Amino acid sequence: MASAPKANAVVSQSGGPTGVINASLVGVIEEAKKHPEIQNLYGAIHAVSGVVKENFIDLKKISSDELEIVATSPSSALGSSRDKPDAEYCQKILDVFKKRDIRYFFYIGGNDSANTCYIINNMAIKAGYELRAFHVPKTIDNDLLVTDHCPGFGTAAKFVSCAVMGDDLDNRALPGIKIDVIMGRHAGFLTAAAALGKQRDDDGPHLVYLPERPVSMDKFLSDVEAVYKKLGRCVIAVSEGIGDVDHKTWAEKIAANAEHDAHGNVQLSGTGALADFLASQIKASLKIKRVRADTFGYLQRSFAGLQSATDVSEARRCGVEAVKLSMTNLNGSVAMKRIGSGKNYAVELFRTELANVAEKTKSLADEYINKEGNGITQAFVDYAMPLTGGLPKTGYLGNKPRI
Amino acid sequence: MASAPKANAVVSQSGGPTGVINASLVGVIEEAKKHPEIQNLYGAIHAVSGVVKENFIDLKKISSDELEIVATSPSSALGSSRDKPDAEYCQKILDVFKKRDIRYFFYIGGNDSANTCYIINNMAIKAGYELRAFHVPKTIDNDLLVTDHCPGFGTAAKFVSCAVMGDDLDNRALPGIKIDVIMGRHAGFLTAAAALGKQRDDDGPHLVYLPERPVSMDKFLSDVEAVYKKLGRCVIAVSEGIGDVDHKTWAEKIAANAEHDAHGNVQLSGTGALADFLASQIKASLKIKRVRADTFGYLQRSFAGLQSATDVSEARRCGVEAVKLSMTNLNGSVAMKRIGSGKNYAVELFRTELANVAEKTKSLADEYINKEGNGITQAFVDYAMPLTGGLPKTGYLGNKPRI
Repeated sequence: MASAPKANAVVSQSGGPTGVINASLVGVIEEAKKHPEIQNLYGAIHAVSGVVKENFIDLKKISSDELEIVATSPSSALGSSRDKPDAEYCQKILDVFKKRDIRYFFYIGGNDSANTCYIINNMAIKAGYELRAFHVPKTIDNDLLVTDHCPGFGTAAKFVSCAVMGDDLDNRALPGIKIDVIMGRHAGFLTAAAALGKQRDDDGPHLVYLPERPVSMDKFLSDVEAVYKKLGRCVIAVSEGIGDVDHKTWAEKIAANAEHDAHGNVQLSGTGALADFLASQIKASLKIKRVRADTFGYLQRSFAGLQSATDVSEARRCGVEAVKLSMTNLNGSVAMKRIGSGKNYAVELFRTELANVAEKTKSLADEYINKEGNGITQAFVDYAMPLTGGLPKTGYLGNKPRI
Repeated sequence: MASAPKANAVVSQSGGPTGVINASLVGVIEEAKKHPEIQNLYGAIHAVSGVVKENFIDLKKISSDELEIVATSPSSALGSSRDKPDAEYCQKILDVFKKRDIRYFFYIGGNDSANTCYIINNMAIKAGYELRAFHVPKTIDNDLLVTDHCPGFGTAAKFVSCAVMGDDLDNRALPGIKIDVIMGRHAGFLTAAAALGKQRDDDGPHLVYLPERPVSMDKFLSDVEAVYKKLGRCVIAVSEGIGDVDHKTWAEKIAANAEHDAHGNVQLSGTGALADFLASQIKASLKIKRVRADTFGYLQRSFAGLQSATDVSEARRCGVEAVKLSMTNLNGSVAMKRIGSGKNYAVELFRTELANVAEKTKSLADEYINKEGNGITQAFVDYAMPLTGGLPKTGYLGNKPRI
């Protein structure tokens, strides 16, 4: 292994923002300052597009006070991008790296970002240009391989569980059916997190529908009816990616119907379409009057002032670790291994190959989903609860004995 | 003034839940325990419907520990109701009061609840039955008369401002147009609160549309275009109650169009209809590609673990005050008067007549809305910021000088 080169570094953030991607950024910055091998530390604005345009800022000039505020702010403080660089794009990135003597590349993002690291790293190797390329994981979807969980998920899970806890109490106060549509098209982790805050036997969400378990409309309606008959109310957490038993997602089906409608109904592909569709099915079939629906939207990934302390700390450590690894490795992706559970929950960090993470996705394990396919198991609670940093206790009095 | 009778009391919660209505309930309970005049303290489950059904619990039996958890929980711990009692309904309530020797009635709710207190109180007077009826204010809409502001608003304002702060940072990361639809059909206080978190000159929301200021679609689109041309992005906070210049609300117009559509498009009255309609207008007219929209929904009023400390404290004091007032008054509504501003912000409580609050609503004052009718003034920030209990600082790096 060649010793770490004395050269410049670039760090950037890609894909959908999260509540802690800035903590990872600050982790990279604070650790980079400790290594004289890293000369200038460039922040590329709007991810790889900022690299190509040489849209750089000097991250060593930001004061510690400002960095601490950044570390606790949601969204991507350097801006982001949805660009998925092809070979030509990557070549342009490499050209800028050569021009600016950038030999360290830290990319905070999901599996696409790991792939970009991988491609650029291979290009550099072929070109005989020494480049150290590291991926720092982030995603609220929690769907990256190898790592136990992803920075960003714990904070989003805290938001979703606090939202559904409040919503369930609201539904107790004014009973009826409530549908909450939650992010995560392909993996059900965030939707499953809706059930983490359950504290009483009859707390909602009473039904949880995940992309991993397709459900027919008949089954959905009979599930809802059974809960409603028992409790007089029902709170339902639904992934935006739930599908029918024919493996088409409900969202696709609704959109397809809209397309077949010659009268151009754009609303059927609107922001509340899935929630409204499910609500209308319940109203029509079960004749229940009070049916309400919300679609949580962007608040799940960028909400100011609500973070999981555990998530913030781990995200920062992942940023630090990437820089440490770059001193003794040519490339890699940072991953977390769980080394304790419950009150002894802790993680240790390790390096995995970029190729292990690039473009791959993970689904919710079978052990985390109940047999019926409409709820989660205690194993999921044990897995996910520590990541939220703990949830607030709630009180309810309506179930006290009558006098 | 006759001395306070030795008798039973009932307390209940009505209308839409809030983040601090339980703090008011706990205030009533803790103060009631101090007055031997109040013998049993009944909690009526699901508001007046619980009174009529004699669906009562014994609130003096709840432990202090449990009460403290209730005080920090969103929603209505006794359940709620949308019933608006008519004379016959009120007579039934009075009959139960007589039967159970209930001579204190504490009702936590909005202007409808104040009206219910008023009607029942007058009925009792006519019947020669001594009853002390007190209204404790609550509403996220902040639209009650007399009081400087309403318990519940500060916490909802904190939620909305934190949501839009995060959303604005998200929109910086991935620029485009973002529309956020916020609760409050008739009063714009909560939508105005979307702008409380602005920290940088170019922070969003860049446009704020309130029910108090009707706007034509042409004006709306030209406003959005102007911001987009200047900043390359635009975050818009819109009240669910905004109307066109003909004074019909946009939501009504969308619903009316849906009705005129013979093809039965239920989605046009769906949860995201207003947001989606505005987004589609922007896409079609301004040819902007990335247009996103969210409708905040129920999260604004019942979200676990996010309260304004100021709001919690004031809500509790209002509950305490109602009981204190009942020792020396026959009826009334609790109101707050601001006795300091900025860092010296404080309130004192006072009694106002039930009739001053019953069925009346307040709108956002002209001084709180900018001349253009598409934003708020510093006067509103000065008014509302203390009620949130303070907002988090956020960091952003993308505007640093390039190197």
